[in-house]
Amino acid sequence: MKAPDLGIRIGVFEHGKRNSISDVKGVKVGHVTLIKGRGKLIPGKGPVRTGVTAILPHDGNIYKEKVLAGAFVMNGYSKPVGLVQLWELGTIETPIILTNTLSIGTAIDGLLDYVLRENEDIGVTTGSVNPLVLECNDSYLNDIRGRHVKREHVVEAIESASKDFEEGAVGAGTGMSAFEFKGGIGSSSRIVEVEGKKYTVGALVLSNFGKREDLTIAGVPVGLELKDWPGRGGSGKGSIIMIVATDAPLTARQLNRLAKRAVVGLARTGGYAYNGSGDVVVAFSTANKIKHYEKQEISIRALPDSVLSPIFKATAEAVEEAIINSLLQAKTMDGRDNHIRYALPKEELVRIMKKYGRIEE
Amino acid sequence: MKAPDLGIRIGVFEHGKRNSISDVKGVKVGHVTLIKGRGKLIPGKGPVRTGVTAILPHDGNIYKEKVLAGAFVMNGYSKPVGLVQLWELGTIETPIILTNTLSIGTAIDGLLDYVLRENEDIGVTTGSVNPLVLECNDSYLNDIRGRHVKREHVVEAIESASKDFEEGAVGAGTGMSAFEFKGGIGSSSRIVEVEGKKYTVGALVLSNFGKREDLTIAGVPVGLELKDWPGRGGSGKGSIIMIVATDAPLTARQLNRLAKRAVVGLARTGGYAYNGSGDVVVAFSTANKIKHYEKQEISIRALPDSVLSPIFKATAEAVEEAIINSLLQAKTMDGRDNHIRYALPKEELVRIMKKYGRIEE
Amino acid sequence: MKAPDLGIRIGVFEHGKRNSISDVKGVKVGHVTLIKGRGKLIPGKGPVRTGVTAILPHDGNIYKEKVLAGAFVMNGYSKPVGLVQLWELGTIETPIILTNTLSIGTAIDGLLDYVLRENEDIGVTTGSVNPLVLECNDSYLNDIRGRHVKREHVVEAIESASKDFEEGAVGAGTGMSAFEFKGGIGSSSRIVEVEGKKYTVGALVLSNFGKREDLTIAGVPVGLELKDWPGRGGSGKGSIIMIVATDAPLTARQLNRLAKRAVVGLARTGGYAYNGSGDVVVAFSTANKIKHYEKQEISIRALPDSVLSPIFKATAEAVEEAIINSLLQAKTMDGRDNHIRYALPKEELVRIMKKYGRIEE
Amino acid sequence: MKAPDLGIRIGVFEHGKRNSISDVKGVKVGHVTLIKGRGKLIPGKGPVRTGVTAILPHDGNIYKEKVLAGAFVMNGYSKPVGLVQLWELGTIETPIILTNTLSIGTAIDGLLDYVLRENEDIGVTTGSVNPLVLECNDSYLNDIRGRHVKREHVVEAIESASKDFEEGAVGAGTGMSAFEFKGGIGSSSRIVEVEGKKYTVGALVLSNFGKREDLTIAGVPVGLELKDWPGRGGSGKGSIIMIVATDAPLTARQLNRLAKRAVVGLARTGGYAYNGSGDVVVAFSTANKIKHYEKQEISIRALPDSVLSPIFKATAEAVEEAIINSLLQAKTMDGRDNHIRYALPKEELVRIMKKYGRIEE
Repeated sequence: MKAPDLGIRIGVFEHGKRNSISDVKGVKVGHVTLIKGRGKLIPGKGPVRTGVTAILPHDGNIYKEKVLAGAFVMNGYSKPVGLVQLWELGTIETPIILTNTLSIGTAIDGLLDYVLRENEDIGVTTGSVNPLVLECNDSYLNDIRGRHVKREHVVEAIESASKDFEEGAVGAGTGMSAFEFKGGIGSSSRIVEVEGKKYTVGALVLSNFGKREDLTIAGVPVGLELKDWPGRGGSGKGSIIMIVATDAPLTARQLNRLAKRAVVGLARTGGYAYNGSGDVVVAFSTANKIKHYEKQEISIRALPDSVLSPIFKATAEAVEEAIINSLLQAKTMDGRDNHIRYALPKEELVRIMKKYGRIEE
Repeated sequence: MKAPDLGIRIGVFEHGKRNSISDVKGVKVGHVTLIKGRGKLIPGKGPVRTGVTAILPHDGNIYKEKVLAGAFVMNGYSKPVGLVQLWELGTIETPIILTNTLSIGTAIDGLLDYVLRENEDIGVTTGSVNPLVLECNDSYLNDIRGRHVKREHVVEAIESASKDFEEGAVGAGTGMSAFEFKGGIGSSSRIVEVEGKKYTVGALVLSNFGKREDLTIAGVPVGLELKDWPGRGGSGKGSIIMIVATDAPLTARQLNRLAKRAVVGLARTGGYAYNGSGDVVVAFSTANKIKHYEKQEISIRALPDSVLSPIFKATAEAVEEAIINSLLQAKTMDGRDNHIRYALPKEELVRIMKKYGRIEE
Repeated sequence: MKAPDLGIRIGVFEHGKRNSISDVKGVKVGHVTLIKGRGKLIPGKGPVRTGVTAILPHDGNIYKEKVLAGAFVMNGYSKPVGLVQLWELGTIETPIILTNTLSIGTAIDGLLDYVLRENEDIGVTTGSVNPLVLECNDSYLNDIRGRHVKREHVVEAIESASKDFEEGAVGAGTGMSAFEFKGGIGSSSRIVEVEGKKYTVGALVLSNFGKREDLTIAGVPVGLELKDWPGRGGSGKGSIIMIVATDAPLTARQLNRLAKRAVVGLARTGGYAYNGSGDVVVAFSTANKIKHYEKQEISIRALPDSVLSPIFKATAEAVEEAIINSLLQAKTMDGRDNHIRYALPKEELVRIMKKYGRIEE
Repeated sequence: MKAPDLGIRIGVFEHGKRNSISDVKGVKVGHVTLIKGRGKLIPGKGPVRTGVTAILPHDGNIYKEKVLAGAFVMNGYSKPVGLVQLWELGTIETPIILTNTLSIGTAIDGLLDYVLRENEDIGVTTGSVNPLVLECNDSYLNDIRGRHVKREHVVEAIESASKDFEEGAVGAGTGMSAFEFKGGIGSSSRIVEVEGKKYTVGALVLSNFGKREDLTIAGVPVGLELKDWPGRGGSGKGSIIMIVATDAPLTARQLNRLAKRAVVGLARTGGYAYNGSGDVVVAFSTANKIKHYEKQEISIRALPDSVLSPIFKATAEAVEEAIINSLLQAKTMDGRDNHIRYALPKEELVRIMKKYGRIEE
């Protein structure tokens, strides 16, 4: 269930066919979900509530045909891997992997298993590769010290990627919490017209942030209204990863600009980038492919900056709705020490949205 | 008239005595307002709708006793002066001057007139000084090419600074527009308790950004409701300057963090950091004074990062309300070519806020 | 006199025809030199040893046809104007103006006089303009508090720009010091071949930094050898501005990379980016012109990053020699309070270079 | 053998007792060196020429007592892990691990093994931890695809750390090359007096960069002189990691400044930050310890920026000599496909240094 299914409209643009990041041509998403055990935390043993999510910018060999990319760190209490090279060279050259904080090492290794297998030249006749791995801390539900993600899970997530993928408490989102409800993976898209041409902007988030009382949906203070709804606790260890994809032709510099606008969407849901929240955005465009072995002058397609405002707004909207969708799509999940994260209660939500005039009675 | 006067509550924290940046001890604000002529634009002649605003971090000699500071550029389509040194040394050493885009040169010269007069050692026995000047483009109402701000206006703004100052269409805000209504200077404050101690966070904005339909007040889509209210046009040349002051003891690094949170407040009013909008934040703390001639090891008071979240939230709230206050405080103003910026209609606003359940009937 | 005239070879690449930034097609430089009075400093009166230098990226209207650009701040104890927008949009849209620290306000105003005159649409039917002004502090020789640069000097510097221009104690370099010798304007260029095509990299510096003992020429510790040569004193208020121009097709991101490599040249002359030295680099490419009113998708020519290494090295060499040339070209100058900056003594220099095996006996 | 042992003097400051980063009180270094097999590269099998180096900022629990830190990326063609959080919070909270590019995942996992063991609260009652891992690509000698570094090697490197440690072709430096000679680990230190107090600045580098002809030692073009010395090939896949430690009381902002000055030392050895070279600096100060569970206002000791210049210069010198020492300490090493990296020939070096007047005859 996504926001439009409840009659909740985030922003003004239309969404794409799937209302998903995979509305951007070529983009696919895959998950591996790990759920095992129940009850008291035995560090290193369980319970397990975690996973891996992979985002593929296109169907081909991403190392050989890189995409232009930008990134923005709203709050750097985070352990992203790969941003330094992304900023320097303006490209992404691997699938993007999301997982839990203590599994970034294994995620890198799994991602390398995949990339090295696909590219026998790496480390032999050409240089190295820049793995792109982002994380949130799922320790409220998950035995994060157990590092239950294994290398093969990463390869599996990549290989299972498809246009149609689940959202909510799946993949890297399995153990994540948002606003003291169940969070996780959410996605949305927007169609925007610029000088007579249509472009798609898609967002996928891994939501794991926020205090209950801060939750805001389409401007409505839902969190304050649900302050006493059960399941509170454990806030403040959170974070959010936001991935923005577009087919609009943008340079790396422009994609850094785009990445910043994701924060507008985040803020509108009640994100304050609290001290402990690692809030990181990666944005890429599929319009230009940068060949690994190119030596001759190339030509980069780009929109003039002066026409980008609608794309900026669409980015904010797609991210805002992706966050709300991560809540709407997630089912209630219990975890370590009988912690429980409830799904956002839909009937209550509809009641509140009506009270504030945002859903027609 | 500020938001609370209409029963509009922005966020959850209490505001300070004045609900103003001057609630932070030592901070003062002064304006010079320039209004002359009416009717058709004669570039270089008028009409004149512009001015200067000065923010003083403390009562003493700011060059000799600098304050720690940070800054964040949400969108750099802007001509701020002084940020490079602010980032390098983490200090502010002059009053902060706000004016129109084409008057930054004159504003620097006027600020230097003041600072050189107060500090005879500059350029003789000590080094130079880093003027801090920020701007927005008021050309929708003002003959900006006329550069009507003179050096003496800057000195006058500094010297007239006081705890009680006007907001709205005054000083640098005289010719500014926000959401195709009359914008300009707005201020607000929040009191926040951290580990048993109370701190004040104050914000002052120079608002000059936004499309009508984007205006959001306390989550309510006021702009969409007022889409057909008269006075539209000329959007997209805007910008916003946000100044954040606090008495909480924070390092320059932490003030860079604080500055970023201003953007959360901006986003919640309908700011998307459109391409043409220069969105710039400067944040300072009055808790440490850095002496110009100090040569010995010093001691910097600072809160641990782990307790900053409430201060981050208070910053977002103070900025959000300051922007709304800039609209509420501004009176209707006409300008060049009979452009007119209407004050935000209060009765309509109250009606809309009631419709969306945000003001009690 | 430049380094090659003394038989001193900096690096391995060949220089261009003029061994100057103006070897890059379209680039021109103009100066206004202000020298008046002698003897004791009377702040506000004199003596005057200052000026203005203008660098024009191409012959046309730079506002209407912008060039791509990057910048790097090695040490931000500096008051550059225009970098925030340069980083955001990746373009330069005015001539680049160099002057003394306390004249940046007037320099902006003079630059606006020129740009507004050439572009009647600015502030009327289009937005504003981003003046690019950089500075060093010439107060060791000059009555900097007098702010003797006037707006018309800036216009004059722009209008007098040509392919052939003086170096040394001229323009903005008039009152500058380097390594406690006379510094100022210096320029150099390099020709570099990349995948069979030749490109030019040109550098122009405004040198005003360094302690005597740090001066290093082609690796030789010239400064230590000349430690007792007369004229020492007043170090530590310095700075250096480095401008890099190229006809190689590079994006804004790549020009940020190029700008960083200027620091390699700086370091090799004995630059340590001391606390008080504002070390700032601006780099631009003339290969793409970005039209102000463009609304449709454009195509940006760019070299792949993988072939940029020779251009990086050429940049370092051109900057290193430009700094040395600023010393070699400058004539002895006296100034305020009978301070005197001697020209680097050429005979001594040759003797030292021979001693260290860097000039053939 | 270090530079002073050959009579080569880099800069003007004295070095500390060990001429090593461990001259900074509390700092220790440990290595694990992996050498196995010989001859033709069989990807995944060998030969193995790689390892791990660990730098410990102090003797205690680094997670519970963090040190202030800064970092600078001269060229981001690199895969550092941990910089985003280091920049945000200004601290290091784990040992610093150096290894090869494709082993960063395993290095994170090994580092986590150690840190989680020492801190049972992580992921249970407190948040997560920010592993700091830096790398260079040793694939010229090493079967890098084999990822021969195992988690236990990281723990072993940490646990074996001591004040006295080997340099050259050891630890992470085992398979590294510099200027087409054998490079690897090098270290040096400087003692600097500031306002009557003595401070130590220490540097440790992992050198793996440079074209033969660029090598410069104390200003002498050693690389050009040794252009035809055997063993050339395979340049351009390199990188350099530079670690700077000091007991001078500096804030995180100031340590970012310090980190930048490492690049001055790098440049003076012939580093141009070529496209493929990931040049990364991390700097920390042991003077302040930041407690993990602190909630109350703290006091940070810091020198005023105005006295930092000698510390900046000492940093440049220590890094410059550390790079040269990495060459002088390294012994000839063969590797995959019978690639061989010769030790820098000492007799030739002395001859060249004499020719250029830098060693007394």
